[in-house]
Amino acid sequence: MITCRHFYLKSHAVTHPNINMNDLPGSAGRIDIVARCINSAFWLSYGIRKDVVFHTILHGEPSPPVYIRIEGDKLRKVSPDERNIAIFIKKAIERMKENMEVESTPGIFVSKKSFNELLEENKDKDFYLLDEKGEEIDNVKIGRKPFFLIGDNMDFEEEEKEIIYKYGAKSVSLGKKSYLSSHCITILNWLMDKI
Amino acid sequence: MITCRHFYLKSHAVTHPNINMNDLPGSAGRIDIVARCINSAFWLSYGIRKDVVFHTILHGEPSPPVYIRIEGDKLRKVSPDERNIAIFIKKAIERMKENMEVESTPGIFVSKKSFNELLEENKDKDFYLLDEKGEEIDNVKIGRKPFFLIGDNMDFEEEEKEIIYKYGAKSVSLGKKSYLSSHCITILNWLMDKI
Repeated sequence: MITCRHFYLKSHAVTHPNINMNDLPGSAGRIDIVARCINSAFWLSYGIRKDVVFHTILHGEPSPPVYIRIEGDKLRKVSPDERNIAIFIKKAIERMKENMEVESTPGIFVSKKSFNELLEENKDKDFYLLDEKGEEIDNVKIGRKPFFLIGDNMDFEEEEKEIIYKYGAKSVSLGKKSYLSSHCITILNWLMDKI
Repeated sequence: MITCRHFYLKSHAVTHPNINMNDLPGSAGRIDIVARCINSAFWLSYGIRKDVVFHTILHGEPSPPVYIRIEGDKLRKVSPDERNIAIFIKKAIERMKENMEVESTPGIFVSKKSFNELLEENKDKDFYLLDEKGEEIDNVKIGRKPFFLIGDNMDFEEEEKEIIYKYGAKSVSLGKKSYLSSHCITILNWLMDKI
């Protein structure tokens, strides 16, 4: 039985909080993608998935990396629309401290953390890299502690993929089409609901 | 083989164009739901699904019904973020005429049309009503002209369901959980990609 689902999005969104809420895609390195992924990770019609942890590292300027973790069992006050979720991301960036993790709002944690550190901290999990060329998900037996790694519109770099595979990740595919990151999360949640 | 996929969302969004773009959920009867459903219906990583037609009827005040149809093979200029999609819905409402259908922007058509008329026009299609109590989708053979009927946060009324069944709709379920309308569309698109 799967006790908790982890999703990691590699994001190229900005790491300053001066985000223009009227232009999330243009002004902030596609922070709209992050917001939609958070919607997909947590929302059901009548509540929040408590068994999900969402991770992202923002790689944009001026001071990457900014690591944000959202824990479904503690998440409060956020609405499912992009703008509202983006406001909470902005708050997280504003409240980040250099040398310690901060809970910027209930259930949202922010710190400086590299991708290597994140993988090392989660090395007890079963890593899956979403990749169109990977093994078809229907043929993969998902482990008890799944941790899915998903790129935004710019994907992972080769060096990152090397690290991912070093941590034992399996490459899995949702099919030949290339889906939006948020849609991948929706589909993965649905597939895991059926397990 | 499925040649075209149709999705219908019953929406309670407003039918006036004075939509506050800074508060899509609160100001406009959950027009954020409509925007997210449109994102789910059409977007892939590298383009728009040309084989999708999205239908919605807005039932909110002051002058329902407003019927909007989006044809993937003609859709242009729209970005996948909620705000941008909502701007195009607003334009459709602004440009609606009482007695004729108008193409408000490329691929987006608006008119006065009732739900009955919409079903009658599409009676050659295979209707499926999304319903948690329906038959599990994995056990349903999807017809060649699928037309999925999906409620927003307020669902269909009993009278509407009667009409839907009169048109031969099958009730299908994506599982015991109640998913956001947009997530249902993402999952349905994915399932149909596999057929």
